[in-house]
Amino acid sequence: MLSRSLYSQASKALLSQRPRVARSGVLGRISARCLSTFDKHHDVFETLGIQKTNNKGVFDGEWSGSGPIVPSINPVNNQVIAEVVTMPIPKRGHVLLAMRDALVKNLQPLGKLVALEMGKILPEGVGEVQEYIDILEYALGLSRMMQGAIIPSERPGHIMLETWNPLGTVGVISAFNFPVAVYGWNSALALVTGNGVLWKPSPTTPLCALAITRILEQTLRQHNLPPALCSLVTGGTDVGVSLTADKRTHVLSFTGSTQVGREVGKVVQGRFGKSILELGGNNAIVVMDDCDIDLAARAILFAAVGTAGQRCTTTRRLIVHESVYDSLIERLIKAYGQVKVGDPLDDGVLCGPLHTEAAVSTYKQVLDSVIKQGGEVLCGGQVLTEGEFEHGNFVVPTLTKVRPDMDIIKNEAFVPILHTMTFKTLDEAIAINNGVAQGLSSSIFTTNPANMFKWIGPKGSDCGIINVNIPTNGAEIGGAFGGEKETGGGRESGSDSWKQYCRRGTW
Amino acid sequence: MLSRSLYSQASKALLSQRPRVARSGVLGRISARCLSTFDKHHDVFETLGIQKTNNKGVFDGEWSGSGPIVPSINPVNNQVIAEVVTMPIPKRGHVLLAMRDALVKNLQPLGKLVALEMGKILPEGVGEVQEYIDILEYALGLSRMMQGAIIPSERPGHIMLETWNPLGTVGVISAFNFPVAVYGWNSALALVTGNGVLWKPSPTTPLCALAITRILEQTLRQHNLPPALCSLVTGGTDVGVSLTADKRTHVLSFTGSTQVGREVGKVVQGRFGKSILELGGNNAIVVMDDCDIDLAARAILFAAVGTAGQRCTTTRRLIVHESVYDSLIERLIKAYGQVKVGDPLDDGVLCGPLHTEAAVSTYKQVLDSVIKQGGEVLCGGQVLTEGEFEHGNFVVPTLTKVRPDMDIIKNEAFVPILHTMTFKTLDEAIAINNGVAQGLSSSIFTTNPANMFKWIGPKGSDCGIINVNIPTNGAEIGGAFGGEKETGGGRESGSDSWKQYCRRGTW
Amino acid sequence: MLSRSLYSQASKALLSQRPRVARSGVLGRISARCLSTFDKHHDVFETLGIQKTNNKGVFDGEWSGSGPIVPSINPVNNQVIAEVVTMPIPKRGHVLLAMRDALVKNLQPLGKLVALEMGKILPEGVGEVQEYIDILEYALGLSRMMQGAIIPSERPGHIMLETWNPLGTVGVISAFNFPVAVYGWNSALALVTGNGVLWKPSPTTPLCALAITRILEQTLRQHNLPPALCSLVTGGTDVGVSLTADKRTHVLSFTGSTQVGREVGKVVQGRFGKSILELGGNNAIVVMDDCDIDLAARAILFAAVGTAGQRCTTTRRLIVHESVYDSLIERLIKAYGQVKVGDPLDDGVLCGPLHTEAAVSTYKQVLDSVIKQGGEVLCGGQVLTEGEFEHGNFVVPTLTKVRPDMDIIKNEAFVPILHTMTFKTLDEAIAINNGVAQGLSSSIFTTNPANMFKWIGPKGSDCGIINVNIPTNGAEIGGAFGGEKETGGGRESGSDSWKQYCRRGTW
Amino acid sequence: MLSRSLYSQASKALLSQRPRVARSGVLGRISARCLSTFDKHHDVFETLGIQKTNNKGVFDGEWSGSGPIVPSINPVNNQVIAEVVTMPIPKRGHVLLAMRDALVKNLQPLGKLVALEMGKILPEGVGEVQEYIDILEYALGLSRMMQGAIIPSERPGHIMLETWNPLGTVGVISAFNFPVAVYGWNSALALVTGNGVLWKPSPTTPLCALAITRILEQTLRQHNLPPALCSLVTGGTDVGVSLTADKRTHVLSFTGSTQVGREVGKVVQGRFGKSILELGGNNAIVVMDDCDIDLAARAILFAAVGTAGQRCTTTRRLIVHESVYDSLIERLIKAYGQVKVGDPLDDGVLCGPLHTEAAVSTYKQVLDSVIKQGGEVLCGGQVLTEGEFEHGNFVVPTLTKVRPDMDIIKNEAFVPILHTMTFKTLDEAIAINNGVAQGLSSSIFTTNPANMFKWIGPKGSDCGIINVNIPTNGAEIGGAFGGEKETGGGRESGSDSWKQYCRRGTW
Repeated sequence: MLSRSLYSQASKALLSQRPRVARSGVLGRISARCLSTFDKHHDVFETLGIQKTNNKGVFDGEWSGSGPIVPSINPVNNQVIAEVVTMPIPKRGHVLLAMRDALVKNLQPLGKLVALEMGKILPEGVGEVQEYIDILEYALGLSRMMQGAIIPSERPGHIMLETWNPLGTVGVISAFNFPVAVYGWNSALALVTGNGVLWKPSPTTPLCALAITRILEQTLRQHNLPPALCSLVTGGTDVGVSLTADKRTHVLSFTGSTQVGREVGKVVQGRFGKSILELGGNNAIVVMDDCDIDLAARAILFAAVGTAGQRCTTTRRLIVHESVYDSLIERLIKAYGQVKVGDPLDDGVLCGPLHTEAAVSTYKQVLDSVIKQGGEVLCGGQVLTEGEFEHGNFVVPTLTKVRPDMDIIKNEAFVPILHTMTFKTLDEAIAINNGVAQGLSSSIFTTNPANMFKWIGPKGSDCGIINVNIPTNGAEIGGAFGGEKETGGGRESGSDSWKQYCRRGTW
Repeated sequence: MLSRSLYSQASKALLSQRPRVARSGVLGRISARCLSTFDKHHDVFETLGIQKTNNKGVFDGEWSGSGPIVPSINPVNNQVIAEVVTMPIPKRGHVLLAMRDALVKNLQPLGKLVALEMGKILPEGVGEVQEYIDILEYALGLSRMMQGAIIPSERPGHIMLETWNPLGTVGVISAFNFPVAVYGWNSALALVTGNGVLWKPSPTTPLCALAITRILEQTLRQHNLPPALCSLVTGGTDVGVSLTADKRTHVLSFTGSTQVGREVGKVVQGRFGKSILELGGNNAIVVMDDCDIDLAARAILFAAVGTAGQRCTTTRRLIVHESVYDSLIERLIKAYGQVKVGDPLDDGVLCGPLHTEAAVSTYKQVLDSVIKQGGEVLCGGQVLTEGEFEHGNFVVPTLTKVRPDMDIIKNEAFVPILHTMTFKTLDEAIAINNGVAQGLSSSIFTTNPANMFKWIGPKGSDCGIINVNIPTNGAEIGGAFGGEKETGGGRESGSDSWKQYCRRGTW
Repeated sequence: MLSRSLYSQASKALLSQRPRVARSGVLGRISARCLSTFDKHHDVFETLGIQKTNNKGVFDGEWSGSGPIVPSINPVNNQVIAEVVTMPIPKRGHVLLAMRDALVKNLQPLGKLVALEMGKILPEGVGEVQEYIDILEYALGLSRMMQGAIIPSERPGHIMLETWNPLGTVGVISAFNFPVAVYGWNSALALVTGNGVLWKPSPTTPLCALAITRILEQTLRQHNLPPALCSLVTGGTDVGVSLTADKRTHVLSFTGSTQVGREVGKVVQGRFGKSILELGGNNAIVVMDDCDIDLAARAILFAAVGTAGQRCTTTRRLIVHESVYDSLIERLIKAYGQVKVGDPLDDGVLCGPLHTEAAVSTYKQVLDSVIKQGGEVLCGGQVLTEGEFEHGNFVVPTLTKVRPDMDIIKNEAFVPILHTMTFKTLDEAIAINNGVAQGLSSSIFTTNPANMFKWIGPKGSDCGIINVNIPTNGAEIGGAFGGEKETGGGRESGSDSWKQYCRRGTW
Repeated sequence: MLSRSLYSQASKALLSQRPRVARSGVLGRISARCLSTFDKHHDVFETLGIQKTNNKGVFDGEWSGSGPIVPSINPVNNQVIAEVVTMPIPKRGHVLLAMRDALVKNLQPLGKLVALEMGKILPEGVGEVQEYIDILEYALGLSRMMQGAIIPSERPGHIMLETWNPLGTVGVISAFNFPVAVYGWNSALALVTGNGVLWKPSPTTPLCALAITRILEQTLRQHNLPPALCSLVTGGTDVGVSLTADKRTHVLSFTGSTQVGREVGKVVQGRFGKSILELGGNNAIVVMDDCDIDLAARAILFAAVGTAGQRCTTTRRLIVHESVYDSLIERLIKAYGQVKVGDPLDDGVLCGPLHTEAAVSTYKQVLDSVIKQGGEVLCGGQVLTEGEFEHGNFVVPTLTKVRPDMDIIKNEAFVPILHTMTFKTLDEAIAINNGVAQGLSSSIFTTNPANMFKWIGPKGSDCGIINVNIPTNGAEIGGAFGGEKETGGGRESGSDSWKQYCRRGTW
């Protein structure tokens, strides 16, 4: 029934698996990383209201996390959502503006928390929170520009209208690598279009979710809106499965692996829900012989090494015209040699740790496979385990040389390894770019407009993001973000992405 | 591989099942209906180039239908499609204009063929071909207005672009009830956006598909375009399954039952293809006490009885304010009594036969259930079997009286039965309207603007089509056609539906 | 020459007329009104940085106002503007956001200053500043959504683009009745589209202009932008004439009388500049017999009496169906009797003074003419001169009864007089509504959708604003504000109004 | 009064000046050119229904041209227009489609008539009629896509709408150089938006206007629409003046000189009408050193010599990088030497006669001035008067060499003279391009994307058309056509040009 709360369903799932969560130490594990630095960074936690023990992982108006669910707790139900729904859209915009102001006020501590919990360097942590701020500003504007249409009718004295109404509840399952921004993008559009949001963050980044949700809660209360509009459930796969299967999650925005996303997509499709899938990327940069090599080299370095290779838009394949390959690789090897790996909060560090130990294994396996399949490691390739690196998941950013037909480059590995290869003609380069199952981001470096226009045209890159002279990463709020093929086809942020959170009515 | 033809795959499927098709007599069964009237209507068949024996059911540049597939036959391959793709879009528009002219020239015989093969009355048959003509005109305009966007960028000296490129191949699986228009809507948009089309019509309406495909073939040849751009495969479920599962069907537009559409959607989603689903409707008209009763009665009659209740937008539920129920029903019973059932080509006939014998059974079962569940039959209820009706599937259009909570009205039955019920408040009426799984079309009759705006607003009808003072049927080219919930969420025809046939690129 | 500054031209005009300005005591006259209350409201002036003697009425980066213009002063020249122009558009948005924050901080004192200087009541003064804040938020969103287009080309391998680039300098000549909002609307859009702005406020409201400009100056400096981007010249007609005639005022936005606007429009057209004209309104409300009379009465009262009848959207004509005329007038006369006239800063006052003594004369002349032409005064009609009213321009809000063919109702008088008349049919009411030269705002009160759709259709109201069940005033940021016919045809604020501040390029 | 006909006013003007027209022999003069070839091309005239004596130059439902106006003649009045206005917009589209079909049927004879009467070569004549056909197809699509907007409102339970309704009557004053297309562009959009059209063609091309109007008349009659919807008045300046001044010409689309357009603009602005001005161009091509010289040379030749230099988009200035100047000029001189001048109907002729003897004088004066101001003639420069050229206005296409600061290149001369000059930097080239008062079309030839993006950006070309690697001419239907500065600012054809023929209503 649409009129009942997601809560009871989600809570049943939580109750059944919370012991497991406790056992697997979801919040505890985080503590393992974070609590060690709790005293050092107690200002961050204090500012954001996070305690040493955060055992309340469910928020739907009131914080809870254990014991039986009290029915009087305000659930994410339709009545509540209706209050937002029927709020004039520009007024929703003003609530989002207040959320923005609250985030601006907490920008630095939030950025630091992202760095602590996820492991990315501080400027990237702050930058991620800024993306949330940006989309809230965007949604504020949208609150006056979210237009429907009046369409000419063939019937005398009649007009047709096209309207966009909220769907109800938007579920957001986000990944560890952007523990704030992905939720930010989805929640801003979900709220401005009149929906409520239920967030299941990555099990490894619950503190970011707690901190953000506390801020939203406060803002909602200040505007006499039910804080359950921005609900939170932490937990593992079981929670995700429940959320995915539940008919009352009218839209499910899922960010994660293609493997999981494929199942998520089928389940949501099978119940005729709407899904926004942001799955694996296997992003390539094509370097033409006519490009500005220095510009390209700088862009590639940042795109391949940033966030320790754990961005969905990280450049993983470098497709270089044979005539400039040596010259470019020389530059890159030199630049890679200067990348400082270390504590993400330290000045000058460009590459922090991998998020999990498992990723270190992946790193090693990929390099083994490269060798086995006939490729070579051009630089990097080491796991760092000594001294300051002893307790972390640190690896050295790596360049390999491969052939386009090698299997190892067909898959996305969330580590700082960039596979390089050569081509002779643009057609060949495009075929290589398009020759993988994923279709998120791609980029060409060239000064030839004919190349540019071929690249963005019907016979060019088949990705959702088709950059020119900028790297594969660096999405902007104004454009639609997302990818084709096994990347899932969803679009977030700008352009007409907001329509995905609405039902369209023609009359 | 994207670079290979759909042909070999489709043909393998065909080869493996064609014997079955032959056995089940797909083309033969049609003959059973049509060939009996071949001599009477030989002008239609002659004009459209349809022979008594149409054993060639596969068209992909050359007609074939038996024996081994000759590899030299021009397939639906990427090279071919690329020629269209790289054709300037306004020039594509001119090819569509030529198709339109060819259809206009054959409007009457095509309309008659629809009437003969599907069973709808002649004006409806002609009207359906007209919808194809309309969308071709629309696509002609679109060929100059299919805009991408230039979006402000936050990077100095940079702009963002949003482009729309063709996806490749669009598969269209259409249903018996609109044997021409559904394909027309899809193929016009698929072609103008630069795709090739592969059509699998209903196994029971192959002659319409043959006639249309012949006309398109001729036009494409005249423009030196590969006729395989508009390919056709006839056959049964196996062909549909192959087409659905094939990665090279980049977009699959499926019109049919929710049951099949659910599986189709999951398969296409599982391979990260794009689907356009137009599934079951269970369309209701809400009649307010303040409405123009005569206007409403006329609209209801046509919406419930037209095409013998076999339109996806047929009105199946009538939700009437208790204060005007008796008065409206009286009018309707009188009007139903005057509906002439008979040969769809005869003048004055409003209601032709059902398309299959199975539908006659459904008709009877539904009425049995109504009685069993405590409802009553207000008028109609008979299967006609005597005299001129002896060999056909004729039934009398029927009104029932039911309660909103009865199970029988939750499902769509493709027969001319209209379930009537009462309500007290608009909120209640909306709850009844929304209280089924399907969400295609809905309509309210009222003269009160407050009712209208509630109906189209966030707390109103949850259907894709939300009419006011016009019935549930009668889509127009300019608006987006399709429904929410178990109707599948796809949109065809106007507004921004064309974007579904494209991949979006942001740069 | 485009490459030279507006400054020297404007300054020449200023030099030549500044003595006259001094003589006519522009700033001094204001003091006459404001300085008397300077001590009482010294907090307002202090907060906003306005001194007792404000003799510096020219701001183009540095404040000045007398003596020779020092050439080193930073002018409004193209280099300066180019810096904004080449700033990424979303970054411009952030400057506007900072302006918004500064206004929010000063909302109350600014609103009070508007009340003091213009004479409107405090909530209206605050509301006007809020409109400026609203448009800045809107422009922030626009900074990411101000889209150009990619258009299909008929040439092989070619695309067409449509781009929107800044024009250079936007002149704003604003009127006394909205001393803040009109400039706000124009400057926000002018700045976000990349232009500089030169403001000439009404000679009778310079302090509002000074206060606003100081705030903008500070924000621009904080962002290392030339404060001359928001330049100010105070003065009289000579300054306006110079600004209008100067080729370097690429866009001239003029708000004022039709009489002056006609000349302004011709001068700007004659030099092929672009003008945005917001001229006289003569706004009518049509009251149908089927409407909610109480709702209508409340709306009419506020629309006719608010701002003492000095809004451009003030309701001046009331066209009432003969069957409800008596009933409505009775309600209105009662309501008018309860309107408190007085000091605009006093609680409970709904109607402040007229802005000038001349307006009091107009008030008397209009009432004389009504009588002379055969009409009658239903209530009000007095000029208040005793007691607290002794030194002000206070009049009593007035209702008259007239015939639609009387000359007196063809012209706009900026006073709180509402002319009432009757009609028999909607066609007649529309003819009366359209039967004046002005075409700003209009409104109908009805519960009949047929009336509504006729009203907004091709045979309905010919005004730019065509309201239904809300009064003639109360524009919203999201829509385009402005009028047809002698109202001038300009559009400000929402929809695509921003395009007027750009040059369009097709390639 | 809006409710009265344009007819009586226009007819009064006609009556008063028709004798003068007769005396000055408007129709007779044409005969001077055309009648001499009447026998040779009698098929053209016969097909189009044009007689030797065409003394009926006024069409407003019935053809007339002398004697008193019979009041029973159906005028262009509001009742008539209302019939179109209230016709569903897609149905208007179908009338336009029928007009298109009629033009297609007459394409060749119409093209020939344009060649005969205007003097352009046959392919250009046919091409011009094709542009009319193109816009009718575009308007057909527009009839289903001419959208208004639904805009979020800040008031609870309220929405804002933006609607586009017809204005009434659109006057079109067209020039001799495009005797068919300019009217076509305007009339198609005027009609689809629901207006009537009144056409005053150039006094020197009335036969084209007669032929077109006859075809439209027939189509309108076939659709039971008043043929007066497409009215025609031939005549001279007096008719133009009347049409311009008349309040009932709600929109005046004027194509002609800047000198006349300036006055037209002021008159229309003075009465608060809407004008669409397409005035003088002074179009330049910038040739960068990195461009494809052969491509550029071919484009320049066609753009400067086509239509004998009498297109509004003819290239008149060639701004060449000094390093490629000699090489380009060498190619051009060679190409100019091969241009065949002669009878526009002869095969192989690229350059027909000038339209008037006065243009021959202009040609000579421009060349004199070039020499006097220090420039030189590089090739061409002769008036042809012997043999076949004896009775015509034939001149040889000419290249000059000038300096950018010479006065002679600031003005547009409608003759085939191309002024060439050199530059060193792109900034300098842009300054030269922008350094004239006109702003219609401009083009750059370059292979450097940095140059391209500078060219189309805020510091680039200030023209309305900003081409890249295609010449200054060759507008396409999908884009907006028109220019900035003294070109008048109007936009015709694609994008949102249709909105100019509408009044916007916000509610």
